[in-house]
Amino acid sequence: MTAYDDLLAFQRETEALSQVAGRLGWDQETMMPDGAAPQRAEEFAAMSSVLHARSTDARIGDWLGALDEAKLDDVAAANVRKIRRSFERNAKVPADLAKKLSSAASSAQRKWAAAREDEDVAAFVPVVEEIIALKREEAAALANGANPYDALLDDYEPHTSGEEVAAIFDAMRPRLVALRDKVMGGSQPDALDHAFDEQKQMRLSRKLAKGFGYDMRCGRLDKAVHPFSSGSGLDVRITTRTSARDPFNCIYSTIHEVGHACYEQGIDKQHLLTPLGQGVSLGVHESQSRIYENQIGRSRAFTGYLFDEMSDVFGDFGVADADTFYRTVNRLNKGYIRTEADEVQYNLHIMLRFDLERDVIMGKLEARDLEEAWNTRFEADFGYAVDKPSNGLLQDVHWSCGLWGYFPTYSLGNVYAGCLNTAMRAALPDLDLDLAMGDTEEATTWLRENVQQYGGLLKPRDLIEKATGQAPSEAPLLSYLEGKFGAF
Amino acid sequence: MTAYDDLLAFQRETEALSQVAGRLGWDQETMMPDGAAPQRAEEFAAMSSVLHARSTDARIGDWLGALDEAKLDDVAAANVRKIRRSFERNAKVPADLAKKLSSAASSAQRKWAAAREDEDVAAFVPVVEEIIALKREEAAALANGANPYDALLDDYEPHTSGEEVAAIFDAMRPRLVALRDKVMGGSQPDALDHAFDEQKQMRLSRKLAKGFGYDMRCGRLDKAVHPFSSGSGLDVRITTRTSARDPFNCIYSTIHEVGHACYEQGIDKQHLLTPLGQGVSLGVHESQSRIYENQIGRSRAFTGYLFDEMSDVFGDFGVADADTFYRTVNRLNKGYIRTEADEVQYNLHIMLRFDLERDVIMGKLEARDLEEAWNTRFEADFGYAVDKPSNGLLQDVHWSCGLWGYFPTYSLGNVYAGCLNTAMRAALPDLDLDLAMGDTEEATTWLRENVQQYGGLLKPRDLIEKATGQAPSEAPLLSYLEGKFGAF
Repeated sequence: MTAYDDLLAFQRETEALSQVAGRLGWDQETMMPDGAAPQRAEEFAAMSSVLHARSTDARIGDWLGALDEAKLDDVAAANVRKIRRSFERNAKVPADLAKKLSSAASSAQRKWAAAREDEDVAAFVPVVEEIIALKREEAAALANGANPYDALLDDYEPHTSGEEVAAIFDAMRPRLVALRDKVMGGSQPDALDHAFDEQKQMRLSRKLAKGFGYDMRCGRLDKAVHPFSSGSGLDVRITTRTSARDPFNCIYSTIHEVGHACYEQGIDKQHLLTPLGQGVSLGVHESQSRIYENQIGRSRAFTGYLFDEMSDVFGDFGVADADTFYRTVNRLNKGYIRTEADEVQYNLHIMLRFDLERDVIMGKLEARDLEEAWNTRFEADFGYAVDKPSNGLLQDVHWSCGLWGYFPTYSLGNVYAGCLNTAMRAALPDLDLDLAMGDTEEATTWLRENVQQYGGLLKPRDLIEKATGQAPSEAPLLSYLEGKFGAF
Repeated sequence: MTAYDDLLAFQRETEALSQVAGRLGWDQETMMPDGAAPQRAEEFAAMSSVLHARSTDARIGDWLGALDEAKLDDVAAANVRKIRRSFERNAKVPADLAKKLSSAASSAQRKWAAAREDEDVAAFVPVVEEIIALKREEAAALANGANPYDALLDDYEPHTSGEEVAAIFDAMRPRLVALRDKVMGGSQPDALDHAFDEQKQMRLSRKLAKGFGYDMRCGRLDKAVHPFSSGSGLDVRITTRTSARDPFNCIYSTIHEVGHACYEQGIDKQHLLTPLGQGVSLGVHESQSRIYENQIGRSRAFTGYLFDEMSDVFGDFGVADADTFYRTVNRLNKGYIRTEADEVQYNLHIMLRFDLERDVIMGKLEARDLEEAWNTRFEADFGYAVDKPSNGLLQDVHWSCGLWGYFPTYSLGNVYAGCLNTAMRAALPDLDLDLAMGDTEEATTWLRENVQQYGGLLKPRDLIEKATGQAPSEAPLLSYLEGKFGAF
């Protein structure tokens, strides 16, 4: 055994354990009896403690020091790069800070939920203040003199910077605001007003999931409070939810999670249970869920097929024809909640959070001023005022969980999806003919071959550039959105 | 923190991890997609490796050496006793032998399944021969000059010996053979001949499980190929199976697993996630499943209630009245398969395996002679010859898994159940009035207070003696069986 073999065997076991922890999370959201919660907390803590100890195991440093990088092939070099980055990252954070953060985040989640319930920002401020102090400390330790926000962003979207992200977002914001004003000012179809059998929604979702190429032999679809995808390799499970009045929630949540799951299932099996055996970044992951959900799933062609399917399953549900159905699927709504936002307005939500959290980590904004900053910015971008804290600062759990630097990956995913969609459409000029029949195979095959198969082998930007022939930029997404929604 | 506190904190984390591994097993049998099997094998191996490393961690020895036993209360002393026994046991088995055994057992299970499918004993002999060689080696290491079979038995039923077990079994065998002959020679009711809706079977099982006191807030009931109970503390899940022609399979498998699960749920919560937080031995565990299933569930009183329930759920299913139903539930069948055997014949199956495996470990019987020994003994005890290997030597997976010294705990469970039933009936003279209305609360409360609550605090025999006022013996079980079946 060479040092590389030893290192990889150790990491393989770590990846397997991390899959086990992930499965435990899935179980908690889908199968676990409620009364098991206190015990489950101890089970999670024990798994985290094992995984943390392994992530800072001194033998990793020894193996990294002993191996001969010149002798490694591409795959081995990428594995070593990923392991080294992660090992060096973990070594920079003092163990007691990591522990404080994990314990503060766990208690902050409970306090955030209570504050949101009570519409009580004052109760939330000291909670987020403590998290902010710890995250600033962590960011400083990680940055080691460089930019602290970039150091946090790197955990979710490696090899990029807040400045690069800001350049993209700043170019998008005025055009999205203008587009939103234009569409909202025009005529829109009515929202659905019909009751849809929830078992039938699940059956249709299952059919759509399989249609998009999700392999049920290595996965399963269940109901949960929040839709999510979990697991890698040969065991990638998804959840969705149902609401009698809003079948699009179930259908498009399913397609979104199928995008995430197909990414994991599409990774070359040579990377199974290695550090390269998972999606390379949250942004690239979101590009897959979004392109399945939006550029494919909400296209005129595919919604034509979906209209027929839904008419078969539910009978007449009050939408006259496929064109109206297309407009209904793509209806813009006034609203406050990020997770309910449409393709146009979603990114405005993200930019708001990105600018605020970057200012916070850079020391330019304090916890006590967050609400005012949020509300001012919201009114500027959306054109109306936040009516209550649960529709404003208290709507997302992320900051309470210690997820700072995470939000921008959602919009980076949309930006990457825009790039990929343009390249895919150029490569597959007749794609709409397939989509109109519900056949997504050409599209998903293109995505698997050009994105998914690589797992963590290529850096995120390199991956998009290799797939599209161009460096990632906001231009394709803006053209797509302005073309699609500008025509309404 | 004292050495004891450190030791217990470490063990608590180990128990939590071991619960996680158990949950993974549950998932595999109930929820896991088939295609995930190869990855799951690696996930299990990683968990085993973590748990094995912890079980032999040198710090356990340091803490055990540093703590002051004189200062420990009863609970702490019992925790230390259990930890010390397990640590000393694991230290005796060389790591490479443990690894060889685990790998041989895993491959032997597959080969056993193929040999059983092909009715091919010749293919099985070298497989079990390898396992036997390794188990003899392990037994010798554990026994360190003392009796090797006892050393293996101790893993499943601590603080007993093969000699004690043999004395009990040898006293039972001729009386059970005679009882079987008597019942089989008399008149018996017909078996059920009706189709029973499988969803209704599950609904009835769920009702019965709750009726027996199984707490669904901390558990759940699913279907699986094999019925089992899994988990401890606040998360104890059970499975059952259904067969349209045989509702008793579903119903009594459920009640059996409910007995196991109620034992785990009934343990005093002060022992949660400590070494004492699980059933104390396999024999005592089986005593709970058996007393729920047989002495309570198959009693004349309870079957009267069950007859009414089944009539309500399934309508007329061809059994005339409650007396006939009672006889039908307790019908003796000719058969070859242990898991399908009735109360009278089940123990004959176990004794056969016990005598054979004890001879094997003691070096008196070799793999190549196992089939002949099995068949000779079977014909002597059951009165007819084994017709094919899958009905004989190849019927159970245990020996292939490396489970030697495990079988006798099934019958010890029946023996303990007999002792407990006699004591319980003496304490609750009007119990049958409750059972006839389906009310098992008095019985299950007695069992919880006298057996279940203690978890691993008392040694198995001490526990039975404390609960019944007498040392365990086969006499109560024999009286019960001869009384019940002799009356037919």
